[in-house]
Amino acid sequence: MTKLSHLGEFGLIETLKKFQNLLPRVVKGIGDDAAVLKVKGGRYLLFTTDMLVEDVHFLRRMPAKAVGHKALACNLSDVAAMGGEPVFAVVSLGVPGDISAKYVKDLYTGMWEVAKEFGVSIVGGDTVRSEKVVVNIALLGEVEKRRLIRRQGARPGDWIFVSGALGGSLKSGRHLKFTPRVKEARFLAAKFKPSAMMDLSDGLAGDLAHILKASCVGALIEEKLIPCHRGVSPARAMTDGEDFELLFTMPATRAKKLLEYEGDDKLCFYPIGVVRPRREGFRIVRPSGRIDVVETKGYRHF
Amino acid sequence: MTKLSHLGEFGLIETLKKFQNLLPRVVKGIGDDAAVLKVKGGRYLLFTTDMLVEDVHFLRRMPAKAVGHKALACNLSDVAAMGGEPVFAVVSLGVPGDISAKYVKDLYTGMWEVAKEFGVSIVGGDTVRSEKVVVNIALLGEVEKRRLIRRQGARPGDWIFVSGALGGSLKSGRHLKFTPRVKEARFLAAKFKPSAMMDLSDGLAGDLAHILKASCVGALIEEKLIPCHRGVSPARAMTDGEDFELLFTMPATRAKKLLEYEGDDKLCFYPIGVVRPRREGFRIVRPSGRIDVVETKGYRHF
Repeated sequence: MTKLSHLGEFGLIETLKKFQNLLPRVVKGIGDDAAVLKVKGGRYLLFTTDMLVEDVHFLRRMPAKAVGHKALACNLSDVAAMGGEPVFAVVSLGVPGDISAKYVKDLYTGMWEVAKEFGVSIVGGDTVRSEKVVVNIALLGEVEKRRLIRRQGARPGDWIFVSGALGGSLKSGRHLKFTPRVKEARFLAAKFKPSAMMDLSDGLAGDLAHILKASCVGALIEEKLIPCHRGVSPARAMTDGEDFELLFTMPATRAKKLLEYEGDDKLCFYPIGVVRPRREGFRIVRPSGRIDVVETKGYRHF
Repeated sequence: MTKLSHLGEFGLIETLKKFQNLLPRVVKGIGDDAAVLKVKGGRYLLFTTDMLVEDVHFLRRMPAKAVGHKALACNLSDVAAMGGEPVFAVVSLGVPGDISAKYVKDLYTGMWEVAKEFGVSIVGGDTVRSEKVVVNIALLGEVEKRRLIRRQGARPGDWIFVSGALGGSLKSGRHLKFTPRVKEARFLAAKFKPSAMMDLSDGLAGDLAHILKASCVGALIEEKLIPCHRGVSPARAMTDGEDFELLFTMPATRAKKLLEYEGDDKLCFYPIGVVRPRREGFRIVRPSGRIDVVETKGYRHF
């Protein structure tokens, strides 16, 4: 088996060049000090980054392709959550010298398949030695100024939605193969602009609390409306992380039209409650009709 | 001493917000899914990333501030090498849960001082758990289209320059506190446009070989012209890495004007040889007058 130490850094760079997906807007990709890129006028840039570390976010025995998929997909999810389109990525990879060249190639194949599906160019990177495998991706996206969606626009009376079933992502392995909701986000941004949006990474309870805080509002959600993956309790669906579904709010009249929409590009969204004035806090209606205050502690990284 | 695990991720994010250096062009910095940025028209974006790993690039006992300094400065050096201006950065940090909050703060202070000096905004990031400290920075820069400098424009007859003394960077600790040559690069791009340029990270011999390959040319350099740091032999100055000085080429007439330049913004540049036709290869004139072929193997990362 070819070891990376045998292939060497420049062998690796040559391999990586094959994984570039160069748009005409890439003036220069891998092979200079920095990538040179053209930007479209009238748009904001979106800039985000995510780091995955072996034994914290994934294990060496997991398929490298899936790790590569996840590393890029979670960045795409962040750009989608702002209403944007992902465009350019740079990849930093830390790997032990004795890792197989196949592992590294599989990692890039996983990234590249996502990149290709969503029209992203991988335009550069850095490859260094590290005892544990570390993958860091920084992603640039763009959004038309009028389509930018932030966390801070939710207003009392808005409906609250999620874009898919929640819970059990880590246990089931879904966190390694999820589809970032770029299509859904772009559809919403263009046709039913949400008042606030983010992606679900730390769990519904904690993440909705971020929107509520940023928007200075409260919320009342209904437990029985929360779409749960098979075998997942609503309590788990509230707190499990890494769902990477969209969480968004929208004025009621527009929300009704979204649910009635019958276009060829129809997508599924699930209303789970309503935005309330801040003084009411963040509460949940149980199936019994009892109303509880939601515990908003999300996933603790440390 | 406050441990990071006590401060928690959100405590950390609040701390980091203080280190943002928000330009009016930052629509939204830390605190949403992605940073939202405005771009200037008529410019190319420059996009680069670098990863530093504990026990490979630095040791835990080294000052965290210096590590933060280096992490950002080496990205700035890459953007400078294209003739550009650094503008926005995102920072990923992997740290053990039991690391002191002071260590993390010092790391960011080191970055922030560089960011402030060069007008860069730190607009986002990711903080994760990792056994070894890992710092990854992705940097966005901009360059006016006509000022972009790549590696591929060197022509026979051009003079070859470096922007400062070389060698001994790792041994002396200079690699942790170097000044990225942004000012020098912007001066050159505006007034004496180099035909090719890069930053010296893997050593003069290996890096000049990159320019020669990209430009399909050869070179003849003079050993006695290579500016060396005190106590460093020319042989070491040729092969030591991490100098982060600029290496560039320029047509002879312009090169002479550069050396004669007497403006208030005068900076020092050192001619070390000339570009030759490709068939002559990459050679060096020894002080004795003997001419040797240069061994171009640079630093091996694996």
